[in-house]
Amino acid sequence: VAESLGEFALIQHYFAQQAQGKTSPFVTLGIGDDCALLRSSVEPASRIAISTDLFAQGRHFFQDCNPADIGYKALAVNLSDLAAMGATPRAFTLALSLPNSDSVFLQEFARGLFELANQYECRLIGGDTTKGPLTICITVLGEVNVLQALRRDAAMPGQDVWVTGELGAAGLAVFSTYEGRPLAGEHLAQQRLLRPQPRVAFGQALLGLASAAIDLSDGLVADIAHIATASHVEVHLVANQIPMHPSLRDVPIDQQLRFMLAGGDDYELAFCADSSQREQIHAVSKRLGLNATNIGHVQVKTSDQTQVVVTDLNHQAMSAQTLKKYRGYEHF
Amino acid sequence: VAESLGEFALIQHYFAQQAQGKTSPFVTLGIGDDCALLRSSVEPASRIAISTDLFAQGRHFFQDCNPADIGYKALAVNLSDLAAMGATPRAFTLALSLPNSDSVFLQEFARGLFELANQYECRLIGGDTTKGPLTICITVLGEVNVLQALRRDAAMPGQDVWVTGELGAAGLAVFSTYEGRPLAGEHLAQQRLLRPQPRVAFGQALLGLASAAIDLSDGLVADIAHIATASHVEVHLVANQIPMHPSLRDVPIDQQLRFMLAGGDDYELAFCADSSQREQIHAVSKRLGLNATNIGHVQVKTSDQTQVVVTDLNHQAMSAQTLKKYRGYEHF
Repeated sequence: VAESLGEFALIQHYFAQQAQGKTSPFVTLGIGDDCALLRSSVEPASRIAISTDLFAQGRHFFQDCNPADIGYKALAVNLSDLAAMGATPRAFTLALSLPNSDSVFLQEFARGLFELANQYECRLIGGDTTKGPLTICITVLGEVNVLQALRRDAAMPGQDVWVTGELGAAGLAVFSTYEGRPLAGEHLAQQRLLRPQPRVAFGQALLGLASAAIDLSDGLVADIAHIATASHVEVHLVANQIPMHPSLRDVPIDQQLRFMLAGGDDYELAFCADSSQREQIHAVSKRLGLNATNIGHVQVKTSDQTQVVVTDLNHQAMSAQTLKKYRGYEHF
Repeated sequence: VAESLGEFALIQHYFAQQAQGKTSPFVTLGIGDDCALLRSSVEPASRIAISTDLFAQGRHFFQDCNPADIGYKALAVNLSDLAAMGATPRAFTLALSLPNSDSVFLQEFARGLFELANQYECRLIGGDTTKGPLTICITVLGEVNVLQALRRDAAMPGQDVWVTGELGAAGLAVFSTYEGRPLAGEHLAQQRLLRPQPRVAFGQALLGLASAAIDLSDGLVADIAHIATASHVEVHLVANQIPMHPSLRDVPIDQQLRFMLAGGDDYELAFCADSSQREQIHAVSKRLGLNATNIGHVQVKTSDQTQVVVTDLNHQAMSAQTLKKYRGYEHF
């Protein structure tokens, strides 16, 4: 019916073609009907894990961003949520609001998106496009055993707190790029901001080893506080144990701390595990070629107000005032 | 951690409170973790049905719209997709881009949204909010038996074509309101545009009776063409059998046809079924108090170009030229 490059032709052209041909035992019906149909495991403990994220121009990315990086990152942050649950990615939907049907943008956006989607065999199963300010909404679906899923409310006093990889690079890149104050190490940091690696394999490997986990999107202190609140515990972190990304080597020490504790956008995993699991966690780390560092421990709550305590480089607990500076990204 | 009315407080305040307390055997874990966890039936033929829609200001609604109507309709159009599959609604995610954290807007928006969500016991299981132009992305999840699901590609030559309810009211309302040319019947039509009733119960009742179905969002001709294309058939409709909404009674006959054939936004169901099912379909219609009208039939394809043939009031097939006027809404 449509003769112009209408909505349906658009989706068909840039997305459906790349989505089809890729079969998956989990996708009974993909793009093209009123709904997609997804098959979940008949294993009684299996659950569908769902997460949704909305990406808006001027907030999560800027006009001059490479469209392939936007496509990549929009899916990456969703896969990171699955990773933080220990779930295996299965499929995703994509809703796009676009000012116009810019074929160069769409082609590049799709390239970055499918580069990551194909890596995880995560299938595009449906979507929607509309005219409007550039906005991207991805909903991702995975699968996880409910008895092992890494929930925020499962941290227990006495457990170790761990983090994967190295922190602070994305914070440095945001600061350098968008506050117009270039810092040493910016170039090295930039790639981490644009192309975060969702820790999917690490999250899956933690099933049965870790109790609670979260991915670091808003900043270490802010995200760890979510675990502390949900689990009714206090988390104690030691600043000089937090692994620093090499791009931060030449920035002042106060900014190093700021980027590591509050930088956000690193998309590493923070998780809690019994100390009896240390050897196994190191083995996972070695097998997957991704560092895991013990950065603190979980305690019984000492007060209603306290969620996270950070011991600074002088072995003093940071004041509430100081911690507030590190509380992470707030959208309003 | 957050002291201001930050992102998390916002979601918590306006949405999570209404979402919690409502338990569901299908939702293992709702709002508040990295992912929600959904339990699907262990019945081997059961599938998760997923649909996503993006609502943008200036396109799907205007600044002066009542926020409760926006909340209602954003979910209604998604439930309508489930209805067109015969699926039972289970849960949804909500991603919101908002220019500011306007508490009156959010409260009213949530009221309209949950009015409908609660009616169908469809649980809010997660979401995201960000600062930006008003955009709403809902992803809805339902459940359906794959052997009976109403797919677009399942229409067969010889089957009847049916439509629920009466058509044209939403088209009239859009025309009157947004083209600034008020027509008789506008007031009656307005409610249909603002508060469409997703035909969820009717869709479920069609399982085992109908083969293909679609919901009417872009317009009867455009939407039926999707069934024709997917099923490799031709659909023949008879204009004077199409049930007209009473609000159209006093508008010129050419506009009546335009609103019924191309108006879109009616969110009724069009479906195909063997003629042996007529009695049963009338029984469903009677039981649910919703008209169902036989408006045509499915034929073997006569040419590659033809998807839909409409016999006009003079018993002539409309020309391709005329039909083009009725081809429905294109977003670009």
